[in-house]
Amino acid sequence: MSTTPPDPDRAVTVALLGAGTVGAQVGRLLNQTAADLAPRVGAPLRLVAVAALDPENPREGIDPAIQTSDARAVATSGADIVVELMGGIEPARSLILDAMAAGSSVVTANKALLAAHGAELHAAAADNGVDLFYEAAVAGAIPLLRPLRESLAGDRVSKVMGIVNGSTNYMLTKMDEEGVTYEQIFDEARALGYLEADPSLDIDGHDAAAKAAILAALAFHTHVTIDDVHCEGISKVTADDVRAAQAMGMVIKLLAVAERVPDGSGVIVRVHPTMLPRSHPLASVRLSFNAVFVEAEAAGELMFYGRGAGGVPTSSAVLGDVVVAARNRVTGSIGPARTVYAKLPVLPIAAAQTRFYVNLDVADRPGVLAAIATAFAKNGVSIQVVRQEGHGDNAGLIVRTHLASEEDLERTVEHLRDMDEVKAVLGVMRVEGEAGT
Amino acid sequence: MSTTPPDPDRAVTVALLGAGTVGAQVGRLLNQTAADLAPRVGAPLRLVAVAALDPENPREGIDPAIQTSDARAVATSGADIVVELMGGIEPARSLILDAMAAGSSVVTANKALLAAHGAELHAAAADNGVDLFYEAAVAGAIPLLRPLRESLAGDRVSKVMGIVNGSTNYMLTKMDEEGVTYEQIFDEARALGYLEADPSLDIDGHDAAAKAAILAALAFHTHVTIDDVHCEGISKVTADDVRAAQAMGMVIKLLAVAERVPDGSGVIVRVHPTMLPRSHPLASVRLSFNAVFVEAEAAGELMFYGRGAGGVPTSSAVLGDVVVAARNRVTGSIGPARTVYAKLPVLPIAAAQTRFYVNLDVADRPGVLAAIATAFAKNGVSIQVVRQEGHGDNAGLIVRTHLASEEDLERTVEHLRDMDEVKAVLGVMRVEGEAGT
Repeated sequence: MSTTPPDPDRAVTVALLGAGTVGAQVGRLLNQTAADLAPRVGAPLRLVAVAALDPENPREGIDPAIQTSDARAVATSGADIVVELMGGIEPARSLILDAMAAGSSVVTANKALLAAHGAELHAAAADNGVDLFYEAAVAGAIPLLRPLRESLAGDRVSKVMGIVNGSTNYMLTKMDEEGVTYEQIFDEARALGYLEADPSLDIDGHDAAAKAAILAALAFHTHVTIDDVHCEGISKVTADDVRAAQAMGMVIKLLAVAERVPDGSGVIVRVHPTMLPRSHPLASVRLSFNAVFVEAEAAGELMFYGRGAGGVPTSSAVLGDVVVAARNRVTGSIGPARTVYAKLPVLPIAAAQTRFYVNLDVADRPGVLAAIATAFAKNGVSIQVVRQEGHGDNAGLIVRTHLASEEDLERTVEHLRDMDEVKAVLGVMRVEGEAGT
Repeated sequence: MSTTPPDPDRAVTVALLGAGTVGAQVGRLLNQTAADLAPRVGAPLRLVAVAALDPENPREGIDPAIQTSDARAVATSGADIVVELMGGIEPARSLILDAMAAGSSVVTANKALLAAHGAELHAAAADNGVDLFYEAAVAGAIPLLRPLRESLAGDRVSKVMGIVNGSTNYMLTKMDEEGVTYEQIFDEARALGYLEADPSLDIDGHDAAAKAAILAALAFHTHVTIDDVHCEGISKVTADDVRAAQAMGMVIKLLAVAERVPDGSGVIVRVHPTMLPRSHPLASVRLSFNAVFVEAEAAGELMFYGRGAGGVPTSSAVLGDVVVAARNRVTGSIGPARTVYAKLPVLPIAAAQTRFYVNLDVADRPGVLAAIATAFAKNGVSIQVVRQEGHGDNAGLIVRTHLASEEDLERTVEHLRDMDEVKAVLGVMRVEGEAGT
């Protein structure tokens, strides 16, 4: 259909797969703001079909006559744009492929699907000459994918760091600002409905990992799936870690990090609790807000900040995609969806070089610091700062390292655990956002 | 040219008008990164001509044979993309119009030109079926115009507030953090070369006003020129104002504000020193960084942060535009340049409603507070907080108002100046970023 000459008098037809919170909102907004949107599209937008599990259920602002339970029929109807808001892998994946085969451009917010099958969907879009847009899949309403894909198209991104899960950022903010323990805030967040039905999606970092895969694929023009992402959640973050971070002028955030290794030979994608200096722009992103920090060779440091979730912000992002896809239909062109993949290899976390924080419970006797410093040095890890805390039974050492490999750091920690001078390794965490080596 | 069928084997030709810092950088990067860019464009990019004032002067990474002093010939050469980096109104304006008439898409970073003649250039682009991109014109490398134009295309922006002039933000940051006076930091900034040759462009807010006009036109899909922008600079910001802001948990920033009035009947665009709560995301934008904060109905609060100026970040933004314009040439489509104008009227600052801070030197005797409160009330301005400071000769009152019109506030200040109880009105400043009325 995209090769048909444009007909500005024709309405652009939109079909919805899924009519939950976001789907119903998108349908309603499409109808309510149709008059505002038409001049931006260059033609009227018309909502022609809505696939819902409960098609008898009336939805505000949506004609009940266009609601149906037959998702396959909606997907293959040949509408100009099919908007997939069902979530999950199947049947969403095959419905999207069917819609593209029928000539429809596709807008989706399905992060799980994109993180698992993004390359397949991009290839199908290119084969069928249709658009595939998914601004809402990462960081809700924050315009992020389009800037990465378009505005930085002439630059070279070296690193992306994001706070992309609002629930865990809410929990870490409360731990930092109110001194509550992980257990206390977990119970509170659950009671408030801030966690997914399966809370491990949030707290174990799986949600952030899916978004990290999508971000990495866009930033580095390469194939990344969620299975390529090294993932650690926040359940091991202790009040001690939070206090240690504060003492060092830092704050703990769950970051999704995607970076090109220094020699450019591959990318590493990881999700884990991270200490950040309080002066870093990401440090002031509080509660359920999201933000993505980008380092590019020419552009320097950039940050995109906003609400990461919620039906209204997400529907704004979906609607923005619908408008762009519709405009492309009217002008008879497809948009810049066809990311060209550089096929950079995704390297294991063992290839990463980061700074580390190591918190040790130590014996209070002469020579302990020397012994511990020797243990770091023997394993090839260079110490940046050591802080001694307490005395007697409460003697502690907080070590911050220079850049070290995961492997060297792991070996160092094993070594430390075997030492008589070390009573316990209380905490180990990566540190980002500091200048220097 | 945009209606010719795409020929993927053909190189996309690029011609540069202007080869100063940014121009030379763009030319060099175009040549150096050509291999990286070709797959993103779908065709090779080829730099074919560079108009420079000193064409004999060799430039790193640019073939001397393509340098010429004949800007008109370069503009009318029919290159796929003409990049204008000369600055100023003329001859930049007529060269761009000539280039469009010859079928070239245009990329520019010329904020003065866009702020004065943006509507004319957009119309010419639409008439000639070519792209007009200018991501670098506002906030350097921060991807901003494209997100506003595309990602928020389905939303309704209610307000945009930006820190868009790095020099004045540097000065205000130093006044806040180091307690220096305006005069001291002005001399320092000048000595460091942080101010334009004509410093009034920065400190009187003219540079910010040009960017405010461009932002407002994009955010509200309406015509705004620099003459529509109410503009106050930072030269009257005193150390007293800075201390008063600190005492209230606020910080002073030079903001470019564009807002839709509550009944939606028009927009107001203004540049002035503003007090912001320290918890506001814009408050932590320090030194020469830029950021733009957007409030949209569905998306909620968004912020875009990054380096606002400098040859390298600016050239990144220009190159991003070149890649998108080139891709549009290859796919035979023009991009989403044709902003559809809603033609909302631009209202005078008198129509604005903001909160105000008023700092008064007052007589220290009973009844003064009552008399002053009465003066505010009589002029229709409601007080939110009053803070009494000092005694005797140093007695002061700091008043923060609820939302008030410019007119009512001005009348109040005149009234205060005439009162026996008021020795002097030390400072008046608008306050943004607070919730509530």
